Amino acid sequence: MDFVPYRHKVQYYETDGMRVVHHSNYIRFMEEARCDLMEQMGYSYSRLESMGFFIPVLSASCDYKQMTRFGETLVIGVEVTALSPTRMTIQYEMRDDATGSLRATGETHHCFLSSAGRPISLKREAPEAFEYLRLLLGAGTTEKAEAKPEDTAKA
Amino acid sequence: MDFVPYRHKVQYYETDGMRVVHHSNYIRFMEEARCDLMEQMGYSYSRLESMGFFIPVLSASCDYKQMTRFGETLVIGVEVTALSPTRMTIQYEMRDDATGSLRATGETHHCFLSSAGRPISLKREAPEAFEYLRLLLGAGTTEKAEAKPEDTAKA
Amino acid sequence: MDFVPYRHKVQYYETDGMRVVHHSNYIRFMEEARCDLMEQMGYSYSRLESMGFFIPVLSASCDYKQMTRFGETLVIGVEVTALSPTRMTIQYEMRDDATGSLRATGETHHCFLSSAGRPISLKREAPEAFEYLRLLLGAGTTEKAEAKPEDTAKA
Amino acid sequence: MDFVPYRHKVQYYETDGMRVVHHSNYIRFMEEARCDLMEQMGYSYSRLESMGFFIPVLSASCDYKQMTRFGETLVIGVEVTALSPTRMTIQYEMRDDATGSLRATGETHHCFLSSAGRPISLKREAPEAFEYLRLLLGAGTTEKAEAKPEDTAKA
Repeated sequence: MDFVPYRHKVQYYETDGMRVVHHSNYIRFMEEARCDLMEQMGYSYSRLESMGFFIPVLSASCDYKQMTRFGETLVIGVEVTALSPTRMTIQYEMRDDATGSLRATGETHHCFLSSAGRPISLKREAPEAFEYLRLLLGAGTTEKAEAKPEDTAKA
Repeated sequence: MDFVPYRHKVQYYETDGMRVVHHSNYIRFMEEARCDLMEQMGYSYSRLESMGFFIPVLSASCDYKQMTRFGETLVIGVEVTALSPTRMTIQYEMRDDATGSLRATGETHHCFLSSAGRPISLKREAPEAFEYLRLLLGAGTTEKAEAKPEDTAKA
Repeated sequence: MDFVPYRHKVQYYETDGMRVVHHSNYIRFMEEARCDLMEQMGYSYSRLESMGFFIPVLSASCDYKQMTRFGETLVIGVEVTALSPTRMTIQYEMRDDATGSLRATGETHHCFLSSAGRPISLKREAPEAFEYLRLLLGAGTTEKAEAKPEDTAKA
Repeated sequence: MDFVPYRHKVQYYETDGMRVVHHSNYIRFMEEARCDLMEQMGYSYSRLESMGFFIPVLSASCDYKQMTRFGETLVIGVEVTALSPTRMTIQYEMRDDATGSLRATGETHHCFLSSAGRPISLKREAPEAFEYLRLLLGAGTTEKAEAKPEDTAKA
């Protein structure tokens, strides 16, 4: 599987009175990158929902390394770092697309829910989707996002 | 009926790189004030949804008069200015709570939908709620919001 | 001048409890498309700010035609429909990228401010930027955005 | 010092397609509660900024325990759990105001910056503000927020 790292161009409405991206928005960028990876896998959130599954966020954290400004683009590497039949951990690296310098790292923990809101074993209920995620273990887009920007296809 | 105007204290995450409230947020403040009025009437959006009705926004507009800064509080007057069995128009005045100076005015147009997404006559399907809205015609909280702040109960 | 219409892919955090894009976000999408057009012209908001100019929003309006769902992509045509030395009007057409069906139209009014917050004549203070905007009159990306999706370069 | 816990009423635009508060918004609620505590201390963020100080977020995390729905009110306890001349840690407990049940817990780490963006010792540069924060160590609003709702002053 060959995935393209996700890119997010910073919008004016994402900045705050310190003239940088408000810290809450990185949590949203992580969601964008996570959904993009799932879509590249062929299991978009929309498709999963229509299959009767949700992947809610159990916890989220973000370490802010450098501020990001309006007009800059973040390239976001995503990696599935833990997976069980009922749970998943994803890590994120957000870098400035122009310079490669690290802006933030993050992590989210997830479980798998039925549309009725009950915890399920994804392995049992959707073995094919689970198998795709298993193949992703340690094989996300982070390395690619770390590459020098001139080596990377622009979005 | 005696309604209290809605107050919104500006949060840091609502400011942008110009160090003022981002213009898109006034559309959200109007929603807050509209929902608050409905709740004061006894017909909260939650209750309406559980009764099987939605009141989607058909159009929204906002005129920005003065910038609003972090830490300031807006007092938002709301008035139902037009009502038919199938549609409603609401107008908004947003003022600085400390000085009374006008920050923005706005207007939203709405229809009434069933939970299946079909346009309905609120007058026929929920005559009591419609009657409440009819009593609101020209009788919202705008006048109260225009009053000097020292005459007004603080939230 | 040959501009590419702006595309916005709908994110999960942009949806609301009705499972569609919250109406306030269209005001943000209009900002995205406006900034993108300025950047395609060579006058990004960042560059304008570093030149000492701001283009605040005096008013904004949006007519909602159809709901937009998570995972869909909006293609947003932008057109400068009025321009004076001190003011500008921009119109927007937001269509589903897959089907071309119209989701929303919008309009924003703007003035030109110095970094000190004083209204200025852009024509006098930045004649070259003004001239670019003048060339845009009636020549934005709306027509391209109306084209069938298969005729249009994907973002 | 006697502080009142912060309350946030959930708005419709804060919900997502799962019909619950989007997880990124809890990071914003934590900012609201943090700013409110500082203001109750007499050191609002606005005042600190006018004194030449910023308190940026170095990291933020949130554990989601239960979903929160439109119309519900969160009561948010805040506690300063670590403080040094250059850094501060704050913890948060977010509970449903009606039932007291725990919805989320969170933590943020902060440093102190000059308006020029340089790390400073708050103890040296603003000893009085530092002293206030020191008094807050282990003495925030969390206990009060845990109290039964009928024992607590409503906002």
